Amino acid sequence: QTLLLLPGDGIGPEVIAEVTRLVDLLAPDLQIEEGLVGGASYDAHGTPLTDETLKRALASDAVLLGAVGGPKWVGTARDKRPEAGLLALRKGLDVFANLRPAFCFPALVSESSLKPEVVEGLDIMIVRELTGGVYFGTPRGIDEKGGLRRGYDTAIYTHPEIERVTRVAFEIARGRSGRVCSVEKSNVMDSGLFWRQEVTLAHAELGAGVDLSHMYADACAMELVRAPKQFDVILADNLFGDILSDEAAMLTGSIGMLPSASLGAEGTPGLYEPVHGSAPDIAGKGIANPCAAILSFEMALRWSLGRAKVADALFAAVGVALDKGARTKDLGGELSTREMTDAIIAAL
Amino acid sequence: QTLLLLPGDGIGPEVIAEVTRLVDLLAPDLQIEEGLVGGASYDAHGTPLTDETLKRALASDAVLLGAVGGPKWVGTARDKRPEAGLLALRKGLDVFANLRPAFCFPALVSESSLKPEVVEGLDIMIVRELTGGVYFGTPRGIDEKGGLRRGYDTAIYTHPEIERVTRVAFEIARGRSGRVCSVEKSNVMDSGLFWRQEVTLAHAELGAGVDLSHMYADACAMELVRAPKQFDVILADNLFGDILSDEAAMLTGSIGMLPSASLGAEGTPGLYEPVHGSAPDIAGKGIANPCAAILSFEMALRWSLGRAKVADALFAAVGVALDKGARTKDLGGELSTREMTDAIIAAL
Ligand SMILES: CC(C)[C@H](C(=O)O)[C@@H](O)C(=O)O
Ligand SMILES: CC(C)[C@H](C(=O)O)[C@@H](O)C(=O)O
Repeated sequence: QTLLLLPGDGIGPEVIAEVTRLVDLLAPDLQIEEGLVGGASYDAHGTPLTDETLKRALASDAVLLGAVGGPKWVGTARDKRPEAGLLALRKGLDVFANLRPAFCFPALVSESSLKPEVVEGLDIMIVRELTGGVYFGTPRGIDEKGGLRRGYDTAIYTHPEIERVTRVAFEIARGRSGRVCSVEKSNVMDSGLFWRQEVTLAHAELGAGVDLSHMYADACAMELVRAPKQFDVILADNLFGDILSDEAAMLTGSIGMLPSASLGAEGTPGLYEPVHGSAPDIAGKGIANPCAAILSFEMALRWSLGRAKVADALFAAVGVALDKGARTKDLGGELSTREMTDAIIAAL
Repeated sequence: QTLLLLPGDGIGPEVIAEVTRLVDLLAPDLQIEEGLVGGASYDAHGTPLTDETLKRALASDAVLLGAVGGPKWVGTARDKRPEAGLLALRKGLDVFANLRPAFCFPALVSESSLKPEVVEGLDIMIVRELTGGVYFGTPRGIDEKGGLRRGYDTAIYTHPEIERVTRVAFEIARGRSGRVCSVEKSNVMDSGLFWRQEVTLAHAELGAGVDLSHMYADACAMELVRAPKQFDVILADNLFGDILSDEAAMLTGSIGMLPSASLGAEGTPGLYEPVHGSAPDIAGKGIANPCAAILSFEMALRWSLGRAKVADALFAAVGVALDKGARTKDLGGELSTREMTDAIIAAL
């Protein structure tokens, strides 16, 4: 099995370096490859994702990305920016289901802005559609019409796009509490009404054992603050999923802890990345929290590499390290990126 | 001066009835009219907003709406649903700037899901574009193309639409701390990039004294949870403004307290409504919190009727009533809708 590492920009290379230490320990047979993405790729090749790198990603079993972006590339043309490389990678791998867990580690409950009783035991899985919607819809552009400057995008979903991601949400829910809450603005958007209709249809066909509910995106943004533990699996489109998963992640108070997995069809490589960004302000200082990257590797072991037992052990080790007080700076501690990994390794 | 009351559905009529008591006390010269909107209008006239009602709204100085919607009308055709009446009213009045304050009353800090130190003194004003964007863009629809069922919407903004709402945000900021944070997804949407460019241009032309920053909508959803007090005025489009203002409102813990104002061009009537919905589960019980409606009237006094002093007195009275312990059920108290108003009147 091959794991392609795409460290990217900012703290990306620092946190991915820690993952390689865990690969050596937990999956020494894995073949590790490395490539460039984002600003790093742009600097080397003039594009944030080369065809060659996408080809290698498609040929691997899983792809682990660090982070992309930074102030250095802010003036770069739109389709050359680091983020464009990430979007092209998602689209190229056709990883349509983005799994974003938002869970609160018991040792970190006090990190949250929310009261302990509101977030203790919080464990939400957001399933976000990742390769469609307003992110990729056409027509789009900035131009002038009838003397008026304007900017526009197309929010569009087709039947198969909604069905396949809904299927993933249902499967995941079956391994949890069985509850899925689908989120849209069907009261104002036609694509939202279509989303709701299609999810409802899919539920009738494929939803045995799944308890499906629907909520407007604005209400969901509220309910996540009021009583987040009411949620188990949240299913959302690309745009609402982007916003709500970030909100949910921050409820846990430790955005530096949270991983994500992006899955395509059975047998195709998954893309794994921390939820946090490239954090240019702390890049190069060796103080970034490696946990989100390490847990993204954990998700890769589980979802793409068929190594659930090793994944369980790694997840448990992170929890133990935290229980013993291991903390990087973002968690109010003193440990360096490397020392945090040491603590996890010691707990294995 | 004329104030048109549109009580609407659910608890709408109950909370608007309390407002009329305050009108009698604070602005007895105001001419009060009443009309139907939402489900109430649909039941009477087969449409959630009649031309006649819109005409009367346009002829008044301010419109105060209670709430629209409820389970009774869920099966109704899309353009006949209560929400469609609200959207038609906003569009018909051309109230393009929706002001949604999210502030934490000192006496209610403990109502929030967030830790007291995170929300104490919170005072955000969200300025949401209300008559454009994906809410009204065309083409939109649900149909079949090339054998594929699909649903789609158009997210579109033109230069004047962005400029006029940005101008309002700047004006409001000047009366506060002078800081405006404009929110979009310019990293993935062309309409978002256009939004950012236009706001930046407007700032160069009209932004004297205003400190403008930009943030992605997902980052804003996070930051609202992490450190909401960093924000003063948030400027957002119709869709992001919908979601983020609901999130911000819930940070205060008392959604039953929050009013909103929707303003059009100088000299045209403003539309005022509580942020909360029609709450069908408690409708008819006389236990709804009237404060959001009362404070919406307070905003009408201030923004449309030129009676800032009376508005100040009313706002202060609500604070005093809360300080003295007046609480409806949603705030953990026992007061009825009427008794809560009594407490406010006593504090005037
Ligand atoms: C960087 C950006 C394009 C991206 C997105 O909007 O999808 C990010 O916010 C994410 O959620 O991974
Ligand atoms: C009821 C609905 C159409 C409306 C909106 O989305 O604008 C509501 O959520 C609001 O914010 O007033």
